[in-house]
Amino acid sequence: MKINGKPYRTIWPLGDDAVEVIDQTKLPHEFTTLVLKTAADAAHAIKAMTVRGAPLIGATAAYGIALAMRADASDEALDYAHDILAETRPTAINLRWALKRMRDALRNHPREARAKLAWAEAAKIADEDVDVCRSIGEHGLKILREAAAKKSKGETLNVLTHCNAGWLATVDWGTALAPIYMAHDSGIKLHVWVDETRPRNQGASLTAFELGGHGVPHTIIADNAGGLYMTKGQVDLCIVGTDRVTANGDVANKIGTYLKALAAKDNDVPFYVALPSSTIDWTMAKGADIPIEERSADELLKMTGRLPGGGLTTVEIAAPGSPAANPGFDVTPARLVTGFITERGTCDASEAGLRSLFPDTEKGSKRTR
Amino acid sequence: MKINGKPYRTIWPLGDDAVEVIDQTKLPHEFTTLVLKTAADAAHAIKAMTVRGAPLIGATAAYGIALAMRADASDEALDYAHDILAETRPTAINLRWALKRMRDALRNHPREARAKLAWAEAAKIADEDVDVCRSIGEHGLKILREAAAKKSKGETLNVLTHCNAGWLATVDWGTALAPIYMAHDSGIKLHVWVDETRPRNQGASLTAFELGGHGVPHTIIADNAGGLYMTKGQVDLCIVGTDRVTANGDVANKIGTYLKALAAKDNDVPFYVALPSSTIDWTMAKGADIPIEERSADELLKMTGRLPGGGLTTVEIAAPGSPAANPGFDVTPARLVTGFITERGTCDASEAGLRSLFPDTEKGSKRTR
Repeated sequence: MKINGKPYRTIWPLGDDAVEVIDQTKLPHEFTTLVLKTAADAAHAIKAMTVRGAPLIGATAAYGIALAMRADASDEALDYAHDILAETRPTAINLRWALKRMRDALRNHPREARAKLAWAEAAKIADEDVDVCRSIGEHGLKILREAAAKKSKGETLNVLTHCNAGWLATVDWGTALAPIYMAHDSGIKLHVWVDETRPRNQGASLTAFELGGHGVPHTIIADNAGGLYMTKGQVDLCIVGTDRVTANGDVANKIGTYLKALAAKDNDVPFYVALPSSTIDWTMAKGADIPIEERSADELLKMTGRLPGGGLTTVEIAAPGSPAANPGFDVTPARLVTGFITERGTCDASEAGLRSLFPDTEKGSKRTR
Repeated sequence: MKINGKPYRTIWPLGDDAVEVIDQTKLPHEFTTLVLKTAADAAHAIKAMTVRGAPLIGATAAYGIALAMRADASDEALDYAHDILAETRPTAINLRWALKRMRDALRNHPREARAKLAWAEAAKIADEDVDVCRSIGEHGLKILREAAAKKSKGETLNVLTHCNAGWLATVDWGTALAPIYMAHDSGIKLHVWVDETRPRNQGASLTAFELGGHGVPHTIIADNAGGLYMTKGQVDLCIVGTDRVTANGDVANKIGTYLKALAAKDNDVPFYVALPSSTIDWTMAKGADIPIEERSADELLKMTGRLPGGGLTTVEIAAPGSPAANPGFDVTPARLVTGFITERGTCDASEAGLRSLFPDTEKGSKRTR
């Protein structure tokens, strides 16, 4: 997608020994990029959320392995890079998927071939992510078209989203936002309610930045407000992304997603989850088993923003001395999800639904390919 | 309640021609007070949220009428003060209740008697609010005691609250927090999950400040997090306040309350609403009819906090140019509410429940007395 008219991906190779990423911790205040030269750089970028969003985390981890292979292509170096990257974020499964795919692609190859192979495989993962997201967008577009057709002539289609599952969360296009971009581009009159998404405000800072940059009408709202808009009939459907979908269709996504899914159910508002199949964890039976990342209390107690005179500063916002807890994700049970939007089409949020689109995945296998 | 060991109410008379209030817009960063000398001062304090919380808004409005009567005790001045105070906040009903009570107390009295009468009636409203909140605390304490008795020995009772319905929202004691203070004082081992309560952060700033000041263990969480804690069994019950309860038991309260009530229902967590009977709007049939206040987008787009070096500053936190919407309240349907805690005891969240405690209220009358 474009920033100030210039097309960008969120991650791109610099020659064959480094990758560059958009520093998302600085958005929307400043647009800066960061060069990653080692697996440790990549691990730090994921952990510090310089890059975030399950698909982009996967692509960054893949390049992390490729960077490691340039320095040392031994099995030990491969295992070490795999392990330091794997432990950066516990909830998103694409990370584990990408690392496994990289290791599988390299293991039985001679050391001297690995650096080149790894670079090609990481690039392939990134390119495939773009293709997959484009397909998700096309399948989701059909849903938005149908929803728009049900509105009276001239009425705006109102879509609510939580957190950022846009192009910044992927290599390009996004998952939940891909259909929205395509709908907007195809002339469907739509408006997006953007959940602020505390405590890191990915909605107010990243989703609003993306939608504004593409000219999609949108309004930032407190995470608290979506339920009211649903009761008032001002939300036609919800689309969110996900960090991990278990075999039964339960959905881990940014903390607060579950509350919106409950409100959607209570008001008969369709609630869709957009995902690449690399987000499905076939090995995990149900959402209750997904590890939930606990993040720093500072994300809740402090806030960084722009000063009126320019420049950024961080202020403490809560009662001094009060502790905070900060779980990063919650689990939305499959029963609250209207459907999944994947690169192969849409399906029910159930094991049968997932199997109908991905029958080629062996039961118990780590991952669909 | 006490601040730094000194007992305070949120509003108190200064002689007989002014009242002083705690400036709640400065909390938790600074403790300052403000003197109100006219009805316009009182109206501004309510509108600017120097004072907030339905019961305290009512008491402040009552003193606003009393201040007006000192300047001009004519019928016209009474009506004018009534009207400018009534239009400050649309959702809280205590405001209308207190204004009606003041006007009823003054109307058929000679002008020369009104200033003194008004002062006495406003003081009575404030004193009664303290008594009512104490009673709410005592009735709510029974519920907390029973809930604590169900826990294993040594286990902590976890209570979740949204926004601030503590002593700062009333003249003293609070509504939702009154039982919590009493439970803590009586030795029940309890811990409070404090919803941050975006966009004005009354949870992180006021509830955390209050609980911290009283030594009640608590943890600030994002509004997004409560659902997760309920699914994990880490919330034993919820108690919130309310700005207006309609005759059928629907509850208007701070935006986001509805989402927590949905999550409570989905996880069989009891969800109580604490209220003085002055919050019941017997004239309104159902919650959908309650006017919802739309507040400034700046509350969402900007954030004020403490600088590390001292002093306060305000920063812009969202994507530049993105609009925001900021409804202040939502409506929780009676079906999601386990029970009401009032000054006369607890009851079902229904017209029959409310009538069982307040049978003396004439059907269609403006208000119970």
